[in-house]
Amino acid sequence: MRDHRQEIDRKMSRKIDLNCDMGESYGAYRIGFDEALMPLITSANIACGYHAGDPLVMDRTVRLAAQHGVGIGAHPGFPDLLGFGRRQMQLGPEEIENYVLYQVGALAAFARSAGAKLAHVKPHGALYNMAAKDVELARAIARGIARFSKDLIMVCLAGSAMVEAAEEAGLHVAREGFADRAYNLDGTLRSRKLPGALIEDPKRAAERAVKMVRDGVVVAHTGEEIPLHVDTICVHGDTPTAVEIDKTIRGKLEAAGIEVVPMGNFV
Amino acid sequence: MRDHRQEIDRKMSRKIDLNCDMGESYGAYRIGFDEALMPLITSANIACGYHAGDPLVMDRTVRLAAQHGVGIGAHPGFPDLLGFGRRQMQLGPEEIENYVLYQVGALAAFARSAGAKLAHVKPHGALYNMAAKDVELARAIARGIARFSKDLIMVCLAGSAMVEAAEEAGLHVAREGFADRAYNLDGTLRSRKLPGALIEDPKRAAERAVKMVRDGVVVAHTGEEIPLHVDTICVHGDTPTAVEIDKTIRGKLEAAGIEVVPMGNFV
Amino acid sequence: MRDHRQEIDRKMSRKIDLNCDMGESYGAYRIGFDEALMPLITSANIACGYHAGDPLVMDRTVRLAAQHGVGIGAHPGFPDLLGFGRRQMQLGPEEIENYVLYQVGALAAFARSAGAKLAHVKPHGALYNMAAKDVELARAIARGIARFSKDLIMVCLAGSAMVEAAEEAGLHVAREGFADRAYNLDGTLRSRKLPGALIEDPKRAAERAVKMVRDGVVVAHTGEEIPLHVDTICVHGDTPTAVEIDKTIRGKLEAAGIEVVPMGNFV
Amino acid sequence: MRDHRQEIDRKMSRKIDLNCDMGESYGAYRIGFDEALMPLITSANIACGYHAGDPLVMDRTVRLAAQHGVGIGAHPGFPDLLGFGRRQMQLGPEEIENYVLYQVGALAAFARSAGAKLAHVKPHGALYNMAAKDVELARAIARGIARFSKDLIMVCLAGSAMVEAAEEAGLHVAREGFADRAYNLDGTLRSRKLPGALIEDPKRAAERAVKMVRDGVVVAHTGEEIPLHVDTICVHGDTPTAVEIDKTIRGKLEAAGIEVVPMGNFV
Repeated sequence: MRDHRQEIDRKMSRKIDLNCDMGESYGAYRIGFDEALMPLITSANIACGYHAGDPLVMDRTVRLAAQHGVGIGAHPGFPDLLGFGRRQMQLGPEEIENYVLYQVGALAAFARSAGAKLAHVKPHGALYNMAAKDVELARAIARGIARFSKDLIMVCLAGSAMVEAAEEAGLHVAREGFADRAYNLDGTLRSRKLPGALIEDPKRAAERAVKMVRDGVVVAHTGEEIPLHVDTICVHGDTPTAVEIDKTIRGKLEAAGIEVVPMGNFV
Repeated sequence: MRDHRQEIDRKMSRKIDLNCDMGESYGAYRIGFDEALMPLITSANIACGYHAGDPLVMDRTVRLAAQHGVGIGAHPGFPDLLGFGRRQMQLGPEEIENYVLYQVGALAAFARSAGAKLAHVKPHGALYNMAAKDVELARAIARGIARFSKDLIMVCLAGSAMVEAAEEAGLHVAREGFADRAYNLDGTLRSRKLPGALIEDPKRAAERAVKMVRDGVVVAHTGEEIPLHVDTICVHGDTPTAVEIDKTIRGKLEAAGIEVVPMGNFV
Repeated sequence: MRDHRQEIDRKMSRKIDLNCDMGESYGAYRIGFDEALMPLITSANIACGYHAGDPLVMDRTVRLAAQHGVGIGAHPGFPDLLGFGRRQMQLGPEEIENYVLYQVGALAAFARSAGAKLAHVKPHGALYNMAAKDVELARAIARGIARFSKDLIMVCLAGSAMVEAAEEAGLHVAREGFADRAYNLDGTLRSRKLPGALIEDPKRAAERAVKMVRDGVVVAHTGEEIPLHVDTICVHGDTPTAVEIDKTIRGKLEAAGIEVVPMGNFV
Repeated sequence: MRDHRQEIDRKMSRKIDLNCDMGESYGAYRIGFDEALMPLITSANIACGYHAGDPLVMDRTVRLAAQHGVGIGAHPGFPDLLGFGRRQMQLGPEEIENYVLYQVGALAAFARSAGAKLAHVKPHGALYNMAAKDVELARAIARGIARFSKDLIMVCLAGSAMVEAAEEAGLHVAREGFADRAYNLDGTLRSRKLPGALIEDPKRAAERAVKMVRDGVVVAHTGEEIPLHVDTICVHGDTPTAVEIDKTIRGKLEAAGIEVVPMGNFV
């Protein structure tokens, strides 16, 4: 029900959120172009110290997001700094649930201290990818978030097991699409190991973003249009060209009359 | 002013809190006798994952404290699991402040999820010992706590620089005494490196605890009585004999007509 | 060829090694009964700081092993102290290979400093279990070991993919059996999740150990005898009853005329 | 004695080593310009996984050094990745000694695997700075190195407590100077907190390097020449301009007829 209503509202208002991973530096180590990207996005997924990030970085990043009116989100990951949270770990659901709660609580403290509110939670890296295919894992994540607050939005791969898990836990859902990734016919992402998995041309990526939001479809790598309803589009921040790409995507969306606003405004 | 009023209130009601470090296990590693000790204490200082503790342990310990009506406190320490937070680290004030906020936020999430509230924060190990002598460090800790909430109580070594720092930051203060530690004439703790630093006889420790609360004095290791106003007494939980000692202390306090209640009830 | 000759030699001399995980303490955390167990075993698998252990513990454990004439082995594990190396991690072969080399090198330094020699390497926990089923992973481990020295023995689950991988890499092989674990008909270990997976009666475990060494067979959980040629038997050290069990096993082996000696003496 | 002879030899042959911190990347995090700098230096101090570095980075860096004929050194630091080993930690001598041995052993394994030999050890960051002033700490470091091998060279701040500690432990000594740091009249480094502590002009730094090697003197910040005998000069690699500076220094040294060779060739 809520999902259906959300969708109509969204279509009427033609709103979209642009989310980006932020705050991934750690101690003396710098990753990302947070200062340059923050003005271009509407939601920041901020690392919480497990796979990346540290308290100083979290503080700085939360304040930067707040200054730009960007929605503040926790970006919990596996406890694997060495692997940047990109390596699969087989953890029990109780471990997942409590690791998520820990990270959400830590990030929320910085939001609170900056006079802002935590808006969303997006699982990071391998945790996100595994949850998209494993509903039990997705449920453990959702429980960890809901234990902190049911007012939070869980960012879920559109069409995946995560959406169901988040709704069961009583959370708000933001369905996520990827402008620069190829899709299979069934709406899943084409594996990065296969050719053509990445759309590297910024203009083409931007056009796909517009199509997703305006028409609710994406062209699968086989050429067919498939339905894909998204509330937020993931843009990347870890490459030198990210700023240019993200500018192009935001520009094309706005040129198409789509309002680019934080997901908390409409989800 | 507030400090003075607190003291009168406390004297009138003859109340004392017994605090103990809890939740110091980590993964497969077990430390402490939390189940046996929780019924004997009124405030639990729960490790937050930096020097000890992990999300599963935090969850379990917070729930255990809540079940026993024990006040829930964060016990932030240095990021030094290998040294159990007992080794001095020279960190900048900004690092200290944000490390404290991070740990307090994480622990508070578990309290919230258990339907309880975070009541107090007590710095751990070397962080506590350094802060007792270094007002700048104490201030950084206090700022970290106050950024989360000024409703929190900061547990401070009675008579130390920490008290001033906590009050400046607008926090509530619980002055802490040690029943099993010898005191110098100036009210500081006698170094553990010197003979007689530890009072190992549980009865003698219990008598010292009663004297602190009832009379507001402690006998220094030189034999003179010195004034010492305390709101909470630290009891230890990491030795096999801790349960017996803590029973003796609590028994003697109650036998002397002193009410043993969580610090949040009267501070 | 070498494998066949080894087997004949071993049968003639009726020799067996008893190996045990050791040095799993970490900082203030204590695990295991190393002092009590060291006199009972002939090879120590010593944690190297990734899943357990730290430099002080490694130093102490290596010296203790050397004092008792116990073979010194490295026990590399996943970089997951929080999970004690018992959780599966999906790492690339290059990561595995170099993580193993790192840990082997660190442990070898303590052996060298104690005037002893590193004799063997046994992968720990999830790394061992995964390698027993995944020959690519087993090969990566074997390469990591061989890069340090081809004189080392790799402890391999008898009958598993590890044996082949170790031999390919030019390493010596010690085939390992478990006296207290039930076996499937195909020689694999019965899953711990199934009933009867563990043989808890020390006498029965000891009898199985004798049968393995003397007769080269084990009774599968279905009742049939299956061939199982082992050079070393794993005994456990992390439970309070371990000392009693290990005494029983060693006693029965010696009573059966089997020589209990370090694997380096005959592999 | 040995020190005196070394000095004469060095003067006769006018040799100098240029050392640089290398291999400080960690997982997804990149620091430094190792590929560009390796051809310019003669000794690489390679991080060992405590304050920076990981097994993949260590492997890559050791091989790169070996390819360029650069001396391979271990660069042990405090167990403080979050602080990059730059924060003081108060550890006991037994901890220091064994942490150093652990790191040296790990790095040596990669050297061995690359068909090379570990040549030297240089303590990193706060560990180096503390050891330069604290002979007990310097001795603990030296013992850790000597336990691995007395054939190793310990890189010591010229004129500091480290030199004595290294000689006592039976190690070879390489006395280190800094071309881009101001010196006090007593031969210690001018604090970075004071103005003029850094010589930012590459040409001036290069001229100071030549003067140190050719004349055995450095101009103190007060203007007087003071004696300073050095075997190796530290060049920096963590800034974008490092490559240019290091080229200038090496160029000026060679132009002055000084041979720039690994410290192992003449110490």
